[in-house]
Amino acid sequence: MKQITRTPIVILNFKTYLESTGEKALKLAKISEEVANETGMNIAVAPQHADVWRIAGEVNIPVLAQHIDPVDAGGHTGSVLIESVKEAGASGALINHSEQRIKLADIDVVVKKAKNAGMMSVVCTNNVETSAAAATLKPDFVAIEPPELIGSGIPVSKAEPEVVEGTVDVIHKIDPDVKVLCGAGISTGEDMKAALGLGAEGVLLASGIILADDPKKALLDLVSKI
Amino acid sequence: MKQITRTPIVILNFKTYLESTGEKALKLAKISEEVANETGMNIAVAPQHADVWRIAGEVNIPVLAQHIDPVDAGGHTGSVLIESVKEAGASGALINHSEQRIKLADIDVVVKKAKNAGMMSVVCTNNVETSAAAATLKPDFVAIEPPELIGSGIPVSKAEPEVVEGTVDVIHKIDPDVKVLCGAGISTGEDMKAALGLGAEGVLLASGIILADDPKKALLDLVSKI
Amino acid sequence: MKQITRTPIVILNFKTYLESTGEKALKLAKISEEVANETGMNIAVAPQHADVWRIAGEVNIPVLAQHIDPVDAGGHTGSVLIESVKEAGASGALINHSEQRIKLADIDVVVKKAKNAGMMSVVCTNNVETSAAAATLKPDFVAIEPPELIGSGIPVSKAEPEVVEGTVDVIHKIDPDVKVLCGAGISTGEDMKAALGLGAEGVLLASGIILADDPKKALLDLVSKI
Amino acid sequence: MKQITRTPIVILNFKTYLESTGEKALKLAKISEEVANETGMNIAVAPQHADVWRIAGEVNIPVLAQHIDPVDAGGHTGSVLIESVKEAGASGALINHSEQRIKLADIDVVVKKAKNAGMMSVVCTNNVETSAAAATLKPDFVAIEPPELIGSGIPVSKAEPEVVEGTVDVIHKIDPDVKVLCGAGISTGEDMKAALGLGAEGVLLASGIILADDPKKALLDLVSKI
Repeated sequence: MKQITRTPIVILNFKTYLESTGEKALKLAKISEEVANETGMNIAVAPQHADVWRIAGEVNIPVLAQHIDPVDAGGHTGSVLIESVKEAGASGALINHSEQRIKLADIDVVVKKAKNAGMMSVVCTNNVETSAAAATLKPDFVAIEPPELIGSGIPVSKAEPEVVEGTVDVIHKIDPDVKVLCGAGISTGEDMKAALGLGAEGVLLASGIILADDPKKALLDLVSKI
Repeated sequence: MKQITRTPIVILNFKTYLESTGEKALKLAKISEEVANETGMNIAVAPQHADVWRIAGEVNIPVLAQHIDPVDAGGHTGSVLIESVKEAGASGALINHSEQRIKLADIDVVVKKAKNAGMMSVVCTNNVETSAAAATLKPDFVAIEPPELIGSGIPVSKAEPEVVEGTVDVIHKIDPDVKVLCGAGISTGEDMKAALGLGAEGVLLASGIILADDPKKALLDLVSKI
Repeated sequence: MKQITRTPIVILNFKTYLESTGEKALKLAKISEEVANETGMNIAVAPQHADVWRIAGEVNIPVLAQHIDPVDAGGHTGSVLIESVKEAGASGALINHSEQRIKLADIDVVVKKAKNAGMMSVVCTNNVETSAAAATLKPDFVAIEPPELIGSGIPVSKAEPEVVEGTVDVIHKIDPDVKVLCGAGISTGEDMKAALGLGAEGVLLASGIILADDPKKALLDLVSKI
Repeated sequence: MKQITRTPIVILNFKTYLESTGEKALKLAKISEEVANETGMNIAVAPQHADVWRIAGEVNIPVLAQHIDPVDAGGHTGSVLIESVKEAGASGALINHSEQRIKLADIDVVVKKAKNAGMMSVVCTNNVETSAAAATLKPDFVAIEPPELIGSGIPVSKAEPEVVEGTVDVIHKIDPDVKVLCGAGISTGEDMKAALGLGAEGVLLASGIILADDPKKALLDLVSKI
């Protein structure tokens, strides 16, 4: 179980694309590891639940779960138990992704569960206000992703730089230990450079890399301007 | 990917107990396989998502997912994609478990997805009426489990035999190809025998085996009266 | 509390359009009553929760709730209690509308609650399969509305007549007492005539009337071919 | 539409008790108005959606909705549109009650909708952490209610005073304009006095008054120590 220890970081969310499922997920994780090794960049991958064990056993970069349910061990058929993904090799989790929003009280529960389990928490948010709210819960990272830009190819760092800057400002006032990532529309080295220039300490992205003709080349380009 | 081909069957739902997570899940799956081999009984296991790959690669009995989300491949972070659990080795899925109820339209979607994927579908229901409704969607199995008896240790086959019989009757009128399982409170050979006597073709159970002092002994007892 | 006693019927779903909220909802309900009186057609209206009391006290046509929650009286802040909307004057309810889908077990609960309360139940469905499932729960009506046609202006009775006919067939096999309505894209007299010709006993519609320049004229046209 | 203009305040949540539904809801609202008039205390009532219009037209104290859905006007059958409850006479709303928790992004949407509509927002929370998160969204009030004490008869102001004090502290650091209410187990004058002594500016309560043998006497007692 490899931890994220440095920033800037790139978190590659595998979502539920067929291009990042099963055998292809493993291949993409290995590519991510290669790029991490070749460039020294901190790269983490967030595969589907059923791929966590398989990937965590094969690569030496951090593996995150895409979601954790706010349940304790017991009778919760179909839920994602944090102990289960941790034992499978996950060292952290995305929480409240825009495609898997959860209740405020449940974000609190899951961030605390992650802390207790020694796992990294990345709470996703949609604007400056909810980013501030998320920061009060003291996750390791808040990842701001304006939903209208997700998968759009229009980078948030260019389209709405004030959202990234505003998020960095408000979060640092609330808790300077909470790091900010930005996502939505990020795919190139320019996008990532712009994100870091706005105060983010990394990016969360998916389709820009996963659906690229050559994911390795796309990842190399992403980290090329740092 | 081992298919369920015969009845009677035992489906062991691992839920999210720590006793059936990770390494312990694998051990329980191997015990299930041993009992299947020793007795000739058809036994399937339904582990958590993150354990599917690990278990399916190690045992030669059917592995079911505990839940499938009604989504297509794409941008659905945190969801359980049927293609993912299938590639991980699942040959079927529990659907609409009482701890993971889903919308009617979504049961329809997931049953169809399972059929298209060549996977077995087990739709869980809570009474005669919803069992009839589930049967019209043509899953392979309907598993009737009165929620008040789940985890109670009071077997549905004794406490509410009319619910099991009524379910068998109504389902066979709607579609004789849909098989009936029963669950809730089942743990002993007597319970299973009674269930089959009422027309069920198997049982769905969890805590009675998983939390037993000696799960293998409990499983052997469960199938001893058939 | 006026009951629906005859078919064919028209159920006008007020949804949450501003054109059918508050004072405008009352006006639209009065127009519906006028058309019912002038033409002898059975017309019911389904306003928002907060408008039920106000409308039911002013018109002598059936008023339906748009949704009922599957809860008993007690601590359920924010839920729609059937006793509440009944006392406010509702004589029935839409259940499982495509914009408010609920779990299978909850449809069963709410249909039974409606029956016990002497209220009419209209379960909405999206295709032939879920219509069959809904019929097994014995509501008064099943309203089949292919979601892709809702609000489209393309009438289901023309675009997908086989869905309406298939629904009528399968429901009458399961329970001849369950009446079929059809919805989605219905707005003209031709659409309604076609729907009845396919075996439906009425229509469920919204935007075609609510957003019309002249709702009374639109309603009069809707019922003109019967 | 009467606004809450002063504190301390008492908000009486009618929940879905039969004792506070329909005719009985109206009676309880009138009792609340009498006590407000007799004592000068600011009292607001939060009836079920279908009772808002009826009550708001008969009493001259603030009426709150129990819930608002995060939807705009349009096709949202069964949802609670803010414009609808406002026109029915509500001057504010409970948001995220423990019996009706919503997603973080939706709390943000509804608080903003309330502000734009000139309505008072009361966001309910379960602990110090989520209270801080709620405060960053700038509602008028945050009402802290430890779920385990709701309906228990054990007042939060005595059982967990540190939760109330901690909430007051953290919220005043984040935004001194956000007022704190406390709830859960409150029923007597002593409970309310203790709550105000801890820095709360009012109480949110339900069963302690609604289910009392003599609700008027219970309300008079509640406000007797201020």
